[in-house]
Amino acid sequence: MYRSHNCGELTAANIDQEVTLSGWVQKTRNKGFLVWADLRDRYGVTQLIFDEERTDAKVFKQAEALGREFVIQVKGIVIERVSKNPNMPTGDIEILVKELAILNTAITPPFTIEDETDGGEDIRMKYRYLDIRRNPVKNSLLFRHKVAMEVRNYLSKQGFIEVETPVLIKSTPEGARDFVVPSRMNEGQFYALPQSPQTFKQLLMVGGMDKYFQIVKCFRDEDLRADRQPEFTQIDCEMAFVEQEDIVQTFEGLASHLLKELKGVETGTFPRMTYDEAMKKYGNDKPDIRFGMEFGELNEVAQHKEFGVFNNSELVVGIAAPGCASYTRKEIDALIDWVKRPQVGATGMVYAKYNEDGTIKSSVDKFYDQEDLKKWAEATGAQPGDLILILSGDANKTRARLSALRMELATRLGLRNPEVFAPLWVMDFPLLEWDEETERFHAMHHPFTSPKPEDMPLLETDPGKVRANAYDLILNGNEIGGGSIRIHDKATQQLMFKYLGFTEEEAKAQFGFLMDAFQYGAPPHGGLAFGFDRLVAILGGQETIRDFIAFPKNNSGRDVMIDAPSAIDDTQLKELSIKLNL
Amino acid sequence: MYRSHNCGELTAANIDQEVTLSGWVQKTRNKGFLVWADLRDRYGVTQLIFDEERTDAKVFKQAEALGREFVIQVKGIVIERVSKNPNMPTGDIEILVKELAILNTAITPPFTIEDETDGGEDIRMKYRYLDIRRNPVKNSLLFRHKVAMEVRNYLSKQGFIEVETPVLIKSTPEGARDFVVPSRMNEGQFYALPQSPQTFKQLLMVGGMDKYFQIVKCFRDEDLRADRQPEFTQIDCEMAFVEQEDIVQTFEGLASHLLKELKGVETGTFPRMTYDEAMKKYGNDKPDIRFGMEFGELNEVAQHKEFGVFNNSELVVGIAAPGCASYTRKEIDALIDWVKRPQVGATGMVYAKYNEDGTIKSSVDKFYDQEDLKKWAEATGAQPGDLILILSGDANKTRARLSALRMELATRLGLRNPEVFAPLWVMDFPLLEWDEETERFHAMHHPFTSPKPEDMPLLETDPGKVRANAYDLILNGNEIGGGSIRIHDKATQQLMFKYLGFTEEEAKAQFGFLMDAFQYGAPPHGGLAFGFDRLVAILGGQETIRDFIAFPKNNSGRDVMIDAPSAIDDTQLKELSIKLNL
Repeated sequence: MYRSHNCGELTAANIDQEVTLSGWVQKTRNKGFLVWADLRDRYGVTQLIFDEERTDAKVFKQAEALGREFVIQVKGIVIERVSKNPNMPTGDIEILVKELAILNTAITPPFTIEDETDGGEDIRMKYRYLDIRRNPVKNSLLFRHKVAMEVRNYLSKQGFIEVETPVLIKSTPEGARDFVVPSRMNEGQFYALPQSPQTFKQLLMVGGMDKYFQIVKCFRDEDLRADRQPEFTQIDCEMAFVEQEDIVQTFEGLASHLLKELKGVETGTFPRMTYDEAMKKYGNDKPDIRFGMEFGELNEVAQHKEFGVFNNSELVVGIAAPGCASYTRKEIDALIDWVKRPQVGATGMVYAKYNEDGTIKSSVDKFYDQEDLKKWAEATGAQPGDLILILSGDANKTRARLSALRMELATRLGLRNPEVFAPLWVMDFPLLEWDEETERFHAMHHPFTSPKPEDMPLLETDPGKVRANAYDLILNGNEIGGGSIRIHDKATQQLMFKYLGFTEEEAKAQFGFLMDAFQYGAPPHGGLAFGFDRLVAILGGQETIRDFIAFPKNNSGRDVMIDAPSAIDDTQLKELSIKLNL
Repeated sequence: MYRSHNCGELTAANIDQEVTLSGWVQKTRNKGFLVWADLRDRYGVTQLIFDEERTDAKVFKQAEALGREFVIQVKGIVIERVSKNPNMPTGDIEILVKELAILNTAITPPFTIEDETDGGEDIRMKYRYLDIRRNPVKNSLLFRHKVAMEVRNYLSKQGFIEVETPVLIKSTPEGARDFVVPSRMNEGQFYALPQSPQTFKQLLMVGGMDKYFQIVKCFRDEDLRADRQPEFTQIDCEMAFVEQEDIVQTFEGLASHLLKELKGVETGTFPRMTYDEAMKKYGNDKPDIRFGMEFGELNEVAQHKEFGVFNNSELVVGIAAPGCASYTRKEIDALIDWVKRPQVGATGMVYAKYNEDGTIKSSVDKFYDQEDLKKWAEATGAQPGDLILILSGDANKTRARLSALRMELATRLGLRNPEVFAPLWVMDFPLLEWDEETERFHAMHHPFTSPKPEDMPLLETDPGKVRANAYDLILNGNEIGGGSIRIHDKATQQLMFKYLGFTEEEAKAQFGFLMDAFQYGAPPHGGLAFGFDRLVAILGGQETIRDFIAFPKNNSGRDVMIDAPSAIDDTQLKELSIKLNL
């Protein structure tokens, strides 16, 4: 038996007990006749004391030679500490060591195993097993487990059942982003790894499973934007005999439960917003509503004066940055430079300081008088002390730019508090979006999303205007979940593939199995998938998902620790050639 | 809202309530002025009644046209049934339908959606979404979910945390059975899919995670024996600061909990047996101990007579088939033919009937008298009425053959009752096994398994005799779990790779990351992995795992429903060539 207790549980109540502990040496302190060592394990830290007078000479000598991260086992007596540490649960006691066994030595770690480490991200990734010993990472992994358990127990109590769907599936038309897997048993043929279990969960609904969920790995072989992983985890859910409102209620229930259980936050009913409203008010389909700075459209009050830049713009739109009227010229110029960066792409920015004395001073005073500027303040909701910032140009692009500025300002102003939680439903997404590159409409969510019945006629006349029974759940400006009511009859699904540019043969080859299934009595159904990695990170109060993944890959999709992917050896290559039928 | 209740919950207590139900039409019965329909969903079946007098004429007409598996929604009043059905939970009531909406029609299913179906396995696999509507398959999937929830909640309460390990990993030396995955972001390089998360869970132990588990998909690209899947699910577990006994106790606790919670079975302490004992007593390292028929070795009592066949055999060994002394000559000849089949491979079989009158009649009476035969009975534990069956030859092969016969007889005699549960630990496995083909020793479990310290010296002198700290958990003759104490220091791990025929470079290239990790303070650790598919099937009282998998592949590794794997199209092939750097 390696231990009678762990390193986080002994208190004054255990004084005089003989205990056995095992763990890692966090650090030692040598005072000549006394040696202290902090012993660490997953559960905490306990102080060990070796006393020249009371400890066996051989053990004392061993103690003096203990290095950081040595793995040891000690037997000793719990005694009261002379100088107590009220900041640690075991701070009232220490262990007077009688026996010491070195279970394993350790060479010097490449970075310090402390909450605040001196190791950069690359080195911590390479030695991830050491990084995991640090409290912040360890606690993130414990938290992830806790979230998963809460999700499973909550959904299970609601009658959902977790069903495992296959990982080795068939490649789909978005195939360019599929990982493909050669198969030995079926030479020259390939499996694909799923980007989502979408079709399988729909088949489960056809199969009468009714309420399905799965916490499941999905895969996407694409260039990784920062903080994306080629393998990621979803909470995938689907329900039969439901309308949009049933799904929204069900998963609002789940999200509320998680916020309450894990963060102690009671949010009440989640606000809802249409996609159009979100774009108009925030320039963004996943607005962060922890703070205001709603868009004020200024076309009516700023056009038809002498200012050509505004007059020639499709949209003139502004926000009020709270308390920023005090910005210096230099600070404002820096903001203008910020929006002119290629990543944002504005060509310039107009501003107006709403001074505390009620006057407004703008960068375009030549064209606008105080009365005009008061109207700007009204439209943007600016108060005395605020700074009004205005962009103009093409409506969509200008909204996107102003949204970027809004988020940047909120970050600078400390309005994005990770311990404040603002959930939001965004609904009535467009069914289709125009793809400039291929010059045709693509499904905004996926081709199984149901159009709103009342918009069906528009499919022929104005496809871009058709709204879908689709919804996203937003938390603090992040899409944490998205879903839709699905098409559940063969005729509509065939029509949808036609509108998306599939030939009848293509549709049949790719999704014939699903359309066939719809003929045998498919119930109305719909669902939602949460991005589990993101959800955990946001609930955990972090911006990046990487800390919540035990063994993440870097931005090149590499596991630097185990050096994967890698070239395969000759035997494997030969084997692969056979598989590929080359 | 599609329903106020499900189809399994209405009882006499609901009489006179107006309800809305949705589901599938199981069947209809038309009596001219009355139409009944059984409405089915995941939760049960409720009888609908349409009455020419009390139901709207249009609705009645619709009801007459309802086909099997139509998806409908009805509104109606709960009324008392005239002829109650005590065998169904809703058997006291029926719904007098007022409104009927056909949500989807259905063409005739290719097999009947009943507990006992007319569909063969192939057709049921092709239309798996229809097969899942049948109670036996549906209940198997519900049961699987229940097992997973019990496992997670139990382990979580014991302080284990579930950590997700990567699916896209590095290929290992057992690479020939790895699925490899070309990577777009790293051209010419490959990920592999894990056959188990072995090295990652060991790194978690190095990382101080202490108690890890994961219910996780693993992958093996090999010829599929019947009832194996290229993707399979494991309950993967690992603990630090443990000895073999800690692990055995922990997972015996889990298995006992599952047997009690899911089957109401109290097993008490699981029996244990060494590998050597299992081979000697049952000729098998996963003996089914629901029944006796232990092997009796007869060398001492059957050799040194005139019977050359026995005298020239390394091993003479028999079992007593209970109550089979009454077998006719024809029946015994059939048994002899059975052991002579190439799959078993015996050249013949000696038998002795222990008659009820106490006499023994053998097939070799020429060589053995009653006194000799009494000794056979004693050695095999035969009682009057039993049939003693004896094989001889090479020890290992003979044991394997007699084991096959023992299992076959038990099946014929009805001794393998799926509702009886007999767990067993088999321990002290050999560390290495000789591979005839490559003419060298291979790791019996895997190269990370720790030898028993006291056997370490034998590694140089008699490697085949070295025992490992390895153990299997057997349930009803199936290995449901297996594990070991791992090597946790670099020097021993290097030595092990050397004994397994790795060059230093090969070992470093493949497992350098693990041996590096061992240098930074690796704790003693060990673990166990359960075959989840098999565990669920056995607990569910079934021999085959396929029914407990929502979308299984067939024996060729194919998903016949969605036609995977398949050839990929030109665009994908081009994309793949780029990935492969061809």
